[in-house]
Amino acid sequence: MSLQDFLKMFDEFSRIGYDERYGANRVALTEHDIEARAKFISTLREINAEVDIDDAGNIYGSVGKNRNGVISIGSHMDSVPNGGRFDGMYGVVSGLQVLKELSREKMDVKLIAVDFTNEEGSRWQPDLLGSGLATGVFDRDFVYSRTDEKGLKFGDVLMKTGFKGEEKNRIKNIKPDYYIEPHIEQGPVLENEGYDIGIPQGIVTDIVDLYTFEGEANQAGPTPMNVRRDALVAASTFIERVNGLANKLAPRIVMTVGEIRNAPNVYSVVPQLVQLKLDIRSPEKNLAYENEKAAMEIAQDIANEKNVSLKIEKGWFLDTIHFDEELIETIEKSCKDLNMKYKYIYSWATHDAMNMNKITRTAMVMIPSHNGRSHTKEEYSSDSDLIKGFRVLGKTIGYLTGKS
Amino acid sequence: MSLQDFLKMFDEFSRIGYDERYGANRVALTEHDIEARAKFISTLREINAEVDIDDAGNIYGSVGKNRNGVISIGSHMDSVPNGGRFDGMYGVVSGLQVLKELSREKMDVKLIAVDFTNEEGSRWQPDLLGSGLATGVFDRDFVYSRTDEKGLKFGDVLMKTGFKGEEKNRIKNIKPDYYIEPHIEQGPVLENEGYDIGIPQGIVTDIVDLYTFEGEANQAGPTPMNVRRDALVAASTFIERVNGLANKLAPRIVMTVGEIRNAPNVYSVVPQLVQLKLDIRSPEKNLAYENEKAAMEIAQDIANEKNVSLKIEKGWFLDTIHFDEELIETIEKSCKDLNMKYKYIYSWATHDAMNMNKITRTAMVMIPSHNGRSHTKEEYSSDSDLIKGFRVLGKTIGYLTGKS
Repeated sequence: MSLQDFLKMFDEFSRIGYDERYGANRVALTEHDIEARAKFISTLREINAEVDIDDAGNIYGSVGKNRNGVISIGSHMDSVPNGGRFDGMYGVVSGLQVLKELSREKMDVKLIAVDFTNEEGSRWQPDLLGSGLATGVFDRDFVYSRTDEKGLKFGDVLMKTGFKGEEKNRIKNIKPDYYIEPHIEQGPVLENEGYDIGIPQGIVTDIVDLYTFEGEANQAGPTPMNVRRDALVAASTFIERVNGLANKLAPRIVMTVGEIRNAPNVYSVVPQLVQLKLDIRSPEKNLAYENEKAAMEIAQDIANEKNVSLKIEKGWFLDTIHFDEELIETIEKSCKDLNMKYKYIYSWATHDAMNMNKITRTAMVMIPSHNGRSHTKEEYSSDSDLIKGFRVLGKTIGYLTGKS
Repeated sequence: MSLQDFLKMFDEFSRIGYDERYGANRVALTEHDIEARAKFISTLREINAEVDIDDAGNIYGSVGKNRNGVISIGSHMDSVPNGGRFDGMYGVVSGLQVLKELSREKMDVKLIAVDFTNEEGSRWQPDLLGSGLATGVFDRDFVYSRTDEKGLKFGDVLMKTGFKGEEKNRIKNIKPDYYIEPHIEQGPVLENEGYDIGIPQGIVTDIVDLYTFEGEANQAGPTPMNVRRDALVAASTFIERVNGLANKLAPRIVMTVGEIRNAPNVYSVVPQLVQLKLDIRSPEKNLAYENEKAAMEIAQDIANEKNVSLKIEKGWFLDTIHFDEELIETIEKSCKDLNMKYKYIYSWATHDAMNMNKITRTAMVMIPSHNGRSHTKEEYSSDSDLIKGFRVLGKTIGYLTGKS
């Protein structure tokens, strides 16, 4: 294997749409994502891979004949606005490099490298849209009717950019035997604890609820403290207590309020309405749901204390997903063979692997993220870590094809 | 005095731009404010009052000759968006009614009814813009260059709407001996404690500071609780503690966070940056400044605890203003004469009286606000309260003109 080749190719791909000041801007089906897609396709053609595109714009490159099975490797090339170079791209380039190296061998398995469309959900919500359609999690009408903030529909943009392929090419119809997604950790655990590789056992439970505290808007000056019904004070107390709860249970759980809206949001007016989203994640499904209930009770207590009303709407939830045990063991064996220090972890974020897990034996290989930074220009994994993950992937493919 | 006349006129004026669903929409120099101004001028002409407009668009109606002094009465007719019927309008119509009733008498004092432009500051910041120019608190270049959210300059709109008058008409040049501003309380104290009239001794100290907490944006899932630097958790803790501090010192002080911005404000991202404004008000200047310092210390402690950075910028401040003691005593005497139950209070909000206090003997007469609501369609003062305030005003004018 030419590891220098791999690093060079990764560098070329990951710098598309990347700028030292603004990070990576390869938002789905915008200029730089399209540039990356074109380069993905031309590289596949150079190595005589077959290129197929499905009706979500997912791009599949394949080499080898399916006599003894189909192995797919991939991730996504789209980024969040001002995102990092490594997120997603690492999995796609890894898949591409595997194909490149094995394209000249006579293979009795088919190897597929995949780029899934709109994984991030920055342009069209929900995220995982491409893999969602390709695996039958979403139907086409739903996916095509998603609109971006300019009101453009996913289906229309797909058509216009020339990336609308055929339904028959969906990966679900190809029936792969395996899907492996190499990815950066996007958290600090592997680096902090000194591991080379993380092997996710699955994806954590994720519950998102919308809380609305409603009090009464009144002029800040003439409204004495004791008659106020301040929605922001209630919401702040909630955020503080829920954070305390999560800290007590760490590292088994994370609880985050990342989004908040305050109305009327005028410095001289007591806040009337605060809406916020509480995101709860844990590998332990029961713990997550117990603490969803605990958070709701905390909010109700605060609403009573502060004389504001409370509405809680269930947003969405995802119960803990377990990846394929046999494939995980093969990855572990590969780590051992290569003397990599590995750790069983959970993926605390969703990935295309979540959808792929529904249709085939799926697992991920994770490498350390420096300082745990992700979705920012500071996102970084060293060449040495990129190579380690790629070597584990290669070894694993070897086992699956009977060559390791 | 015809009190039914007064109520009828108040009703007519206050319903301009008012709608049961959306409240009063007489934002400065927009359609309904202009309609109210036109009606103010035509009513003044009907009673043969002299009408003058100054270069801030402030409208002055006057009757009587200045042999024994000049008494001005007024407030503003502009409203916040979706505001109430009573705020400001009560003072202007009260002044107009005084002129109407005394216009046929031979007066050896000059009586002026004033409508000040852009008191609310909803369209052009800062507020009190019209009285600010008329009293020399602001200069013309500053006032004219204020832009609204569409980028329109105050000076240009004033010219276009035909309300640009002459500098010589500014009230500062008229040198009034008194200014009285009847106004609704905009708070619940008078109603709750069963008073007819509030006599403000002045306007409270008001300090507004901008706090910025900066942590680090990271993906909510993969970032464990113990390595987070969550700006919103820090800000929430601050809001909660500062609220606790203010509650302990109530009713001597109010402390409000009405405005907050969170970035990047995405449910799945640990907040990086939170900016908020803390508004501190108290009649006791020293108490206000002591607690500004206490709040800053609380913020610094929290920033240290939560490992975020803190920047505090001084916004603006207004030290306690004292109205004219002699005029206050005259108002008190009028209340006693009329058997009104009155209370010495402070105005916890600013009013045009603040600027007028710089150039002449100034005081206010306040009437109860039902449930303390203001700046909303629910703003309400009963006919009986409107009349009580007007009678106190009339009696006071009587004393000042030697007729009570």
